[in-house]
Amino acid sequence: MASVQDIVVSAAINLLSALAFLLLFAFLRLQPFNDRVYFPKWYLKGVRASPRSRGPFVKKLVNLDGRTYLKFWKWMPAALRMPEPELIQHAGLDCAVYVRIYLLGLKIFVPVALLAFAVLVPVNLTGKTLEGTKDLTYSNIDKLSISNVPSGSLRLVTHIVMAYVFTFWTCYVLYKEYRIITTKRLQFLASEGRRPDQFTVLVRNVPPDPDETVGEHVEHFFCVNHPHHYLIHQLIYNANNLATLVERKKQLHNWRTYYMTRYERNPKKRPTTKTGFWGLWGQTVDAIDYCTAEIEKISEVEAAERERVTNDPNATVPAAFVSFKSRWGAAVCAQTQQTSNPTVWLTEWAPEPRDVYWDNLAIPYVELAVKKLLMSVAMFFLTFFFMIPIVFVQSLASIEGIEKVFPFLTPLIESKHVKSVVQGFLPGIALKIFLALLPTILMTMSKIEGHTSLSSLDRRSAGKYHLFLFVNVFLGSIITGAAFEQLHKFLNQSPSEIPKTVGVAIPMKATFFITYIMVDGWAGIAAEIIRIVPLIIFHLKNAFLVKTEKDREEAMDPGSITFATNEPRIQLYFLLGLVYACITPFILPFIIVFFAFAYVVFRHQIINVYDQKYESAAAFWPDVHFRVIVSLIVSQILLLGLLSTKNASKSTPLLLVLPVVTIWFHRFCKGRYEPAFVRFPLQDAVVKDTLERATEPNLDLKAYLRDAYLHPVFRPIENEKEPVDDDEENNQVVSTKRTSQRGSKNVSGSVTPDGQRL
Amino acid sequence: MASVQDIVVSAAINLLSALAFLLLFAFLRLQPFNDRVYFPKWYLKGVRASPRSRGPFVKKLVNLDGRTYLKFWKWMPAALRMPEPELIQHAGLDCAVYVRIYLLGLKIFVPVALLAFAVLVPVNLTGKTLEGTKDLTYSNIDKLSISNVPSGSLRLVTHIVMAYVFTFWTCYVLYKEYRIITTKRLQFLASEGRRPDQFTVLVRNVPPDPDETVGEHVEHFFCVNHPHHYLIHQLIYNANNLATLVERKKQLHNWRTYYMTRYERNPKKRPTTKTGFWGLWGQTVDAIDYCTAEIEKISEVEAAERERVTNDPNATVPAAFVSFKSRWGAAVCAQTQQTSNPTVWLTEWAPEPRDVYWDNLAIPYVELAVKKLLMSVAMFFLTFFFMIPIVFVQSLASIEGIEKVFPFLTPLIESKHVKSVVQGFLPGIALKIFLALLPTILMTMSKIEGHTSLSSLDRRSAGKYHLFLFVNVFLGSIITGAAFEQLHKFLNQSPSEIPKTVGVAIPMKATFFITYIMVDGWAGIAAEIIRIVPLIIFHLKNAFLVKTEKDREEAMDPGSITFATNEPRIQLYFLLGLVYACITPFILPFIIVFFAFAYVVFRHQIINVYDQKYESAAAFWPDVHFRVIVSLIVSQILLLGLLSTKNASKSTPLLLVLPVVTIWFHRFCKGRYEPAFVRFPLQDAVVKDTLERATEPNLDLKAYLRDAYLHPVFRPIENEKEPVDDDEENNQVVSTKRTSQRGSKNVSGSVTPDGQRL
Repeated sequence: MASVQDIVVSAAINLLSALAFLLLFAFLRLQPFNDRVYFPKWYLKGVRASPRSRGPFVKKLVNLDGRTYLKFWKWMPAALRMPEPELIQHAGLDCAVYVRIYLLGLKIFVPVALLAFAVLVPVNLTGKTLEGTKDLTYSNIDKLSISNVPSGSLRLVTHIVMAYVFTFWTCYVLYKEYRIITTKRLQFLASEGRRPDQFTVLVRNVPPDPDETVGEHVEHFFCVNHPHHYLIHQLIYNANNLATLVERKKQLHNWRTYYMTRYERNPKKRPTTKTGFWGLWGQTVDAIDYCTAEIEKISEVEAAERERVTNDPNATVPAAFVSFKSRWGAAVCAQTQQTSNPTVWLTEWAPEPRDVYWDNLAIPYVELAVKKLLMSVAMFFLTFFFMIPIVFVQSLASIEGIEKVFPFLTPLIESKHVKSVVQGFLPGIALKIFLALLPTILMTMSKIEGHTSLSSLDRRSAGKYHLFLFVNVFLGSIITGAAFEQLHKFLNQSPSEIPKTVGVAIPMKATFFITYIMVDGWAGIAAEIIRIVPLIIFHLKNAFLVKTEKDREEAMDPGSITFATNEPRIQLYFLLGLVYACITPFILPFIIVFFAFAYVVFRHQIINVYDQKYESAAAFWPDVHFRVIVSLIVSQILLLGLLSTKNASKSTPLLLVLPVVTIWFHRFCKGRYEPAFVRFPLQDAVVKDTLERATEPNLDLKAYLRDAYLHPVFRPIENEKEPVDDDEENNQVVSTKRTSQRGSKNVSGSVTPDGQRL
Repeated sequence: MASVQDIVVSAAINLLSALAFLLLFAFLRLQPFNDRVYFPKWYLKGVRASPRSRGPFVKKLVNLDGRTYLKFWKWMPAALRMPEPELIQHAGLDCAVYVRIYLLGLKIFVPVALLAFAVLVPVNLTGKTLEGTKDLTYSNIDKLSISNVPSGSLRLVTHIVMAYVFTFWTCYVLYKEYRIITTKRLQFLASEGRRPDQFTVLVRNVPPDPDETVGEHVEHFFCVNHPHHYLIHQLIYNANNLATLVERKKQLHNWRTYYMTRYERNPKKRPTTKTGFWGLWGQTVDAIDYCTAEIEKISEVEAAERERVTNDPNATVPAAFVSFKSRWGAAVCAQTQQTSNPTVWLTEWAPEPRDVYWDNLAIPYVELAVKKLLMSVAMFFLTFFFMIPIVFVQSLASIEGIEKVFPFLTPLIESKHVKSVVQGFLPGIALKIFLALLPTILMTMSKIEGHTSLSSLDRRSAGKYHLFLFVNVFLGSIITGAAFEQLHKFLNQSPSEIPKTVGVAIPMKATFFITYIMVDGWAGIAAEIIRIVPLIIFHLKNAFLVKTEKDREEAMDPGSITFATNEPRIQLYFLLGLVYACITPFILPFIIVFFAFAYVVFRHQIINVYDQKYESAAAFWPDVHFRVIVSLIVSQILLLGLLSTKNASKSTPLLLVLPVVTIWFHRFCKGRYEPAFVRFPLQDAVVKDTLERATEPNLDLKAYLRDAYLHPVFRPIENEKEPVDDDEENNQVVSTKRTSQRGSKNVSGSVTPDGQRL
């Protein structure tokens, strides 16, 4: 086991590597040719222009101004200085609330750590159980932990009291945070400008009618059942095929541009390609001519398909976006049951147009139920038995396996150097590939489950990933062994035995988790800010594909907060913090450093980099809240298990109160706040309707809504950025501030993140 | 253990006693002086008049017509002959669906029993494991059970296949039944006449307003947020105090009548009473004068209180019944969220006026949450630890305990005869009293939980009672020992061990449960039909309190189906049947006899006796369905446990599929049918609204709804039966049929239950 010295050394190494990352970042971001990688958000907002367009050529590529390097740390205070209301306007509520998760971590753990170090550490340190032992499995860190307290000691009362204090503090912070975020969400929704989704309801499972088309059926149904409120509807075309064609055409365009660039640089040799799969085999042809011909061919097919989809009544799916004359009408329709058969005419709030996941809008009810069952079963096996196929692949991927399948490689592999690399490298690679693919696998599973918006897909995937991390990283690290072995162990142990088994192992794993926090947390966050993959891709694209300013715009990949993978990872730190708060408080400072560092980094990223694909107005908060509650309950049960092995089983009833109260607290919060994330209250709808009727009495809502929910492939290309341009007001506010700032630098509360170069 | 012979003897005894009950019933019901006890429903409908009013005096009391006695079994076919649509009109949908629970039992278990006897019994019988053993713990019945199959035998495949067949059959029957009952409910709601609850929504947690009274606040809120739909509202007065006064006055009236009757019969001696508690001590006074004076006093107080409640704005509670101009408006308001704070302005469908539980309409949100927490904790302790206080009381109720508390009783108790009675009788009585009080205790707990209608109170109490019976009767009989000992055992056993422990014990308890079914089921149902308690009470009241025909009307106690206790008891038979279907099929015929007998008896009772307090349109069916599913899953898990001890652990994955599929089936049914029991679809509302607007364009809805939701104490006494008279149409139909029947006896499909005497 690692001693305090080991931990300090490890912490120093990790801090230094994080610092190196940060220095690298500070250097890279100051280079003008990286500007679009580190400040894409501002380009998309139209506030920032390409630095290449002004000044001498060298200056366009490299920053030669030495003074700016001295202020390399400036981005940190800059990231913190933008006030939250401006942040919400600038990056949306999703982003602003996402960074509040880190803030929540700080709010919970800073007081907990102070209290733990003031009370628990002295109590543990003077426990003296481990004083005389020469047992090598204990380290200095364990002297600070509950392991140092003798069994049955009265000192354990402190831990129980602290468990109460920590629980109540966590609940208090969670409650306040839920309230704040609910208020923010309601304010955000209330202050939003007019948006199509406020008036629109997604209707699924329209039953077939022998005499009417889907469109007529929808219109008649809503005219009858929402007589004074129905306005228009938008049919949904089955355009998956068309979308594939459009995508393929775009790829071919890219290839042609690439070949033409190559030809321009080296006019002596016309580039060639092969007609077969991925250009790997087949007839060799002139690449530029081939691409042009293919594009023409595909354009024709696309035009025909477009024609077919728009005119063929069978190309519509039995679902529609139905719009109402008022927000009140839409709110009513979204929240009520339409017919006595609850499996048809299902209504729900329409996601905003960019948030729609078009492929899932037309799944019949029974099929959906079966798919959900299959996915839960699959999730169970994925969580507990994923090691089995990996072990199998690993056995194939051994030297012998390769020699069997590819006998011609034998002489190469058998050479000594190659062999050692293969042996050291291959067994791990299957697992690494699996873990890298995991978020995609989970997202695919969520897609099969049939959710209709990107935001709900993200939320569902996050839930699955959280379960996987909890079982395989947290439990898997504590009780070493594959998950299915744990499952077998748990099934054959009594329910009161499980917390004991896990609880006893927990103090011993503290040093492991400290290292984990430093490697995965600290270094991971530092790597996030460098954006190494987008950096490389941008420069590759820039070299080969970019011809015009518009191409360069498209070559930028601002990315977005990948909620589905990031949030469950944060939850792991909440779990570790809450579990170890009473047991080994020494871990808490590491977690606090993680939260603080991540808060600054992600605040910087959402201000300068990320461009969210959708805006769900913090619809994910109930999930975040729920998972912290789960962590809290896990921590209480594990403490209970640990204490019952310390001859303190009399404390069991006292500790059992905690999970009951915590569950009750969760239900209370759920009832009190969750509806604000699910439904739109009528009163708010009436307020907005009334205001709009007074300010814009002549609004032509029908024209406004007509094409709002058109499938993206039907949109004219210049309209593609419409949703962003839509809230002009917001944009104006931001750009006004930015412009005014260029004039007077001292406008308080709105400092540019790249102030030093202006 | 009991052998087949023992069971046959026991069955014969129980059959004979049931037969004796039935003969007694046949005799009693033919006596005219019992007519109001056995046919109160017809009196309440106004179809039947008192038999005393016609014919010679003796004939009014005793039935002297010998021929009618010969046809004593006639009530059975008569009970079965009324077709279901007429039954629904006559007794309401609740009753009609309630007897369908017994029918569901028959539908499930008759085919299951046939199949089990055709397949499983031969397989078990030829198993020959128990052939040679002299083990006395096995009986002949066990030769028909799975115990007779050797461990690890291939014969166990039959049991697994049968488990699949039984599961699929049960699910199929449940699915069909759910569909039928959903259709019936929707038809019932659609065919109902105009009723106040169709237009009305119960609004709770009206937030306080400094400038407005509750009434003004409600009116303004709904005028703004449901602008074209709001009609009127009815404030709710805090009339609990007044209701107590009214109740007390009624009691005093009864006492005065009682004393006056006594005085009439014995004019020489004026009855006296004492002024103290329950007339047990205090000053002796003339009883009639005392009662009259008391009534006068209380009338004055009541008038003052009535005045205060109606005029004092503080006497209203922050809740109201809000009525709308159309069913559509009410459906919308009931299903939507009104404001951004989901703890105020809570709306739900108003229960029908007789169904309202007035005391619970004004509980603040936080208080409600706390109460629910306390009640779940209380329910946990009640279920698992109820034996502890009873054992304590029993120890007090011993000879020594009594001698300590009441030393003066010592000489009496110490006498030999008394002592033996006390010793034999007292220990059991605490448990008996507890079990008799249990439904009341559970109902009180449900009331504390804050449900607002009698029907929901009944449903919640049934859920609690089901849990109690499952733990204490089913599990408690299988694993002997008090529930908290079981709990302790379960907590210290592995999850895979629990089904084994219980599973192994199951075949051995078959004979016990057969006896239980005969005693509790067969004899219990036979006792139900005699109505011994209402019979005695009616004759007591008749002797002392009845003066006028109206008094006699009130002395009748038709009673009602006590759903809260009866339904969980039925569920116990479902559980036994499903658990034993694969293990000891010999139990199935006993269960089938129970269901068949109960079906006939309860059909007779709902036709002739019960008068439901409310009509919830079968709102309880989702609960019934859910509990049968729970029984099914329990049976699958126990079979799994049993088989894994029979060296058939390879079958575990095969059997694990069953609970997963069953849970999925339940979720599917829930999604498909449950909304019909919770919400009122807009389409149905539109249809009814449109029809009404066309047929009655000049309806004054405001006048119709004005006093519909008045607290019962404010209703004029002659109006008390209004809800029944309300659906005049229905009444007309029934009475028309009845009347026409008196003329021509052969109208098919509508036979009088008392045909023989007409």
